[in-house]
Amino acid sequence: MIKAYAVQQAGGELQPFEYDPGPLADHDVEIDVEYCGICHSDLSMINNEWGMSQYPLVPGHEVAGKIAAVGAHVNHLAVGDRVGLGWHSSYCGDCNTCLDGDHNLCSDAQGTIVGHHGGFADKVRAQATSVVKLPDELPSEVAGPLFCGGITVYNPMRQFDLKPTARVGVIGIGGLGHMALQFLNAWGCEVTAFTSSDSKREEALSLGAHHTLNSRDAQALEQAAGRFDLLLSTVNVKLDWNAYVNTLKPKGRLHLVGAVLEPLDISVFPLLAGQRSVSSSPVGSPATIAQMLEFAARHDIKPQVEVFAMQDVNKAIDRLHHGSPRYRVVLKN
Amino acid sequence: MIKAYAVQQAGGELQPFEYDPGPLADHDVEIDVEYCGICHSDLSMINNEWGMSQYPLVPGHEVAGKIAAVGAHVNHLAVGDRVGLGWHSSYCGDCNTCLDGDHNLCSDAQGTIVGHHGGFADKVRAQATSVVKLPDELPSEVAGPLFCGGITVYNPMRQFDLKPTARVGVIGIGGLGHMALQFLNAWGCEVTAFTSSDSKREEALSLGAHHTLNSRDAQALEQAAGRFDLLLSTVNVKLDWNAYVNTLKPKGRLHLVGAVLEPLDISVFPLLAGQRSVSSSPVGSPATIAQMLEFAARHDIKPQVEVFAMQDVNKAIDRLHHGSPRYRVVLKN
Repeated sequence: MIKAYAVQQAGGELQPFEYDPGPLADHDVEIDVEYCGICHSDLSMINNEWGMSQYPLVPGHEVAGKIAAVGAHVNHLAVGDRVGLGWHSSYCGDCNTCLDGDHNLCSDAQGTIVGHHGGFADKVRAQATSVVKLPDELPSEVAGPLFCGGITVYNPMRQFDLKPTARVGVIGIGGLGHMALQFLNAWGCEVTAFTSSDSKREEALSLGAHHTLNSRDAQALEQAAGRFDLLLSTVNVKLDWNAYVNTLKPKGRLHLVGAVLEPLDISVFPLLAGQRSVSSSPVGSPATIAQMLEFAARHDIKPQVEVFAMQDVNKAIDRLHHGSPRYRVVLKN
Repeated sequence: MIKAYAVQQAGGELQPFEYDPGPLADHDVEIDVEYCGICHSDLSMINNEWGMSQYPLVPGHEVAGKIAAVGAHVNHLAVGDRVGLGWHSSYCGDCNTCLDGDHNLCSDAQGTIVGHHGGFADKVRAQATSVVKLPDELPSEVAGPLFCGGITVYNPMRQFDLKPTARVGVIGIGGLGHMALQFLNAWGCEVTAFTSSDSKREEALSLGAHHTLNSRDAQALEQAAGRFDLLLSTVNVKLDWNAYVNTLKPKGRLHLVGAVLEPLDISVFPLLAGQRSVSSSPVGSPATIAQMLEFAARHDIKPQVEVFAMQDVNKAIDRLHHGSPRYRVVLKN
């Protein structure tokens, strides 16, 4: 039996919940969960904001732990390996998208907490392909958040062949943004943090931003016209997108990694005149996760975490929902 | 004196108009206009739809002709050269955008018909950098439309390193779209023409489309889910963009080259789930125009044109505005 925490209906509190995972499938592994980050998507899933939650729902898709058992056909992982598990718990493996290395875009990819029980538990299972080994230098305590929040901001840097000479703006300095600042700084870019919070300004500079820009200051936004090669928006609320597009250089890109529910209302002319793009993307493939972990280890990039005991999960969720944690909340078994 | 046709106010008829261009500037050339295409942007400028028209306004930015005179500092063009002139009549030449070869995105680039008199005339002047020689194989009669409509659809193919293996959909089979079909076919792509016109379906196939899709058939659009690497929209009216985004493969791009006035209302989730992009771009740089002309000459790509005498310019405009020309209207001196 796996001992977990589950919500029984949309918006419910997490309560102890046990389930029998059955025999271990040939291509799956079982992970002893040591730490599990809490992501904003866990809240969205708890509240069924995306209409795809199934209850009882065990959240948790930023797992760091050790391999407890491997299925009969698993070759690249062994019992005792330090590993992580993120948003996806399996891929089809056979479609052209998977075969091209884009597992995260596979239309049959399964979510770790979508019709599957996640990492708010003592153990979690997943297809071995979706589980990635941790570099020795990376402490398990901070590894979990890299598997969802971290890869979400790192992936566009790889996907769009971001150049170290680029000027990049990060919109929203929170769980995702504070990792983006570190990655982009180590990547060699000029990094600007867009934040309306006075308290976060100094923190942003210490995390790797070279500049900060008050995103509530319309004049400051106007003065930044034509400045950025890439804007990475980590927020999940509607902003004045056209004002941000205006801060892009010719050929610049506004890339959204926050799941904004409201449609974009972007004018075509500013895109047309400057050959600009607007785009979005989800997490990253296992190979990209492995590359990110190596890059993070080499540059000592670590999410800043606040650690709560697993049994204090409701307190931890309240901290994420109503507090302003610095910056990622992690549960510890 | 240059003998031209001008409108005196928004929406006016074209009337004979003469102006003295003064001494030829050192970096400019004077072109004997042999042919000048009529582009939809000429209508937009005549009607001041974009709020930047200055009257009297001499339209015409798809010029094919011969160099009549060169300024003192012009080295790469000589009297008698067969050339073309498109949307831009000058670039600053000194900004990083120009120095990077992206003259068409230069913020100081001047439009041939924006505060400058265009090609509905016996002569037109422009900075030599913006004037490109015609390959011998390319008849002047069909060359003009390549300099605005043609480069507008060709440029994204170069900008986004379109692969010959790509599946591409062309939305709108008109002045731009009928050239896009030819370019994309020669580029090696699988080409689908989106059109709601029965009469254009057969024509699209003869122009290079491998497939056609009725864009008014919601079910056909749904069945094309996940099919295209690139959608090139040549229309300047609002469509159901989300239905089109849905036909893109993972990593696919919806690229608009039509100047749509209504903001895009695109949902973020379909972009996010598939790492899709939405973008737009204007014409192309002189180097890209030269590359396009060489490619067009090699593959015998030619706009289909209906030729009117220059003095019948109002009739020609009426044909473009209210008829359904096949496919580009060209004036002949």
